Amino acid sequence: MPHLHLEYTANLTGLAVEKTLLRLNNVLMASGQFGSEFDIKSRAVKVESFQVGTSINPRGFIAVTLSMLSGRSPQVKQQLSQSLLAALQDLGEWPANVQLQLSVEVLDIDRDSYSKVAIG
Amino acid sequence: MPHLHLEYTANLTGLAVEKTLLRLNNVLMASGQFGSEFDIKSRAVKVESFQVGTSINPRGFIAVTLSMLSGRSPQVKQQLSQSLLAALQDLGEWPANVQLQLSVEVLDIDRDSYSKVAIG
Amino acid sequence: MPHLHLEYTANLTGLAVEKTLLRLNNVLMASGQFGSEFDIKSRAVKVESFQVGTSINPRGFIAVTLSMLSGRSPQVKQQLSQSLLAALQDLGEWPANVQLQLSVEVLDIDRDSYSKVAIG
Repeated sequence: MPHLHLEYTANLTGLAVEKTLLRLNNVLMASGQFGSEFDIKSRAVKVESFQVGTSINPRGFIAVTLSMLSGRSPQVKQQLSQSLLAALQDLGEWPANVQLQLSVEVLDIDRDSYSKVAIG
Repeated sequence: MPHLHLEYTANLTGLAVEKTLLRLNNVLMASGQFGSEFDIKSRAVKVESFQVGTSINPRGFIAVTLSMLSGRSPQVKQQLSQSLLAALQDLGEWPANVQLQLSVEVLDIDRDSYSKVAIG
Repeated sequence: MPHLHLEYTANLTGLAVEKTLLRLNNVLMASGQFGSEFDIKSRAVKVESFQVGTSINPRGFIAVTLSMLSGRSPQVKQQLSQSLLAALQDLGEWPANVQLQLSVEVLDIDRDSYSKVAIG
């Protein structure tokens, strides 16, 4: 942990995915909340099939979910959420004709039943 | 929010994915629980690698997860879940040889640490 | 339920995905926690875009999430988590140059708002 999931709709064709993940990981490290950079596991998935609302207007979204071991304060979670959202907003250059929504959710991982091992 | 995730196994070849998402979004709007249709963000993912149980019989599933900001009553969640399941059942015309399971799960999003912005 | 999600990074080229899912399902059945093998719905997703930490070293991960109806004890969850992790470790033969992390998370599904139906 932490685990970060980023979903982006396929109409956001200019998104530099790998660069974005690295940037978000740097935001997480800069927060001081995580002991080792090695622990931060982030992935991005392009969403090919999606529907925003009930309109046929061009719309899209980037949805980030940050999952962390339980125990952090509401304030810390809020700060991390807002820092990640700010980093997304900084990505800039969105398609002009797409109504875009960016969101960040923070999830608790149950600490007692989380298992992990590093190999190699 | 809300966010809706739909997973469907690749052996459900007749599924009209975009139409299904629009239908589910309409179900959500009709519930009266959400202020703006624009807020409903739904996506579908085709699952290519899957295993149902320990048998080699042809099986498949559609699994929907609805994530909403925390605070709604158990009754509201139950109703939304059942409405979405009913809409899935109405999709009809399943492959005759596939043992199919449909499911709907409702998840809380922690309200305090959820961040969102709309662009464009 | 239960639902199992397995994510694996694309650099784990030797992973026998279908065999792995079947093995994990067998682990779940052997736990005695689930009444019917038919209920176990597992899927795997290959993660093409990912970033572990802030380094460019070759790294990868397998992340398993097990979602079960709420109500099981912390001990049961811990045992299931450790059994699944042990099964992952037994898969053996990892790419020699990839720093690999294996993890298992256990999630509660809200029992009251979970809906399911079997067809065919």
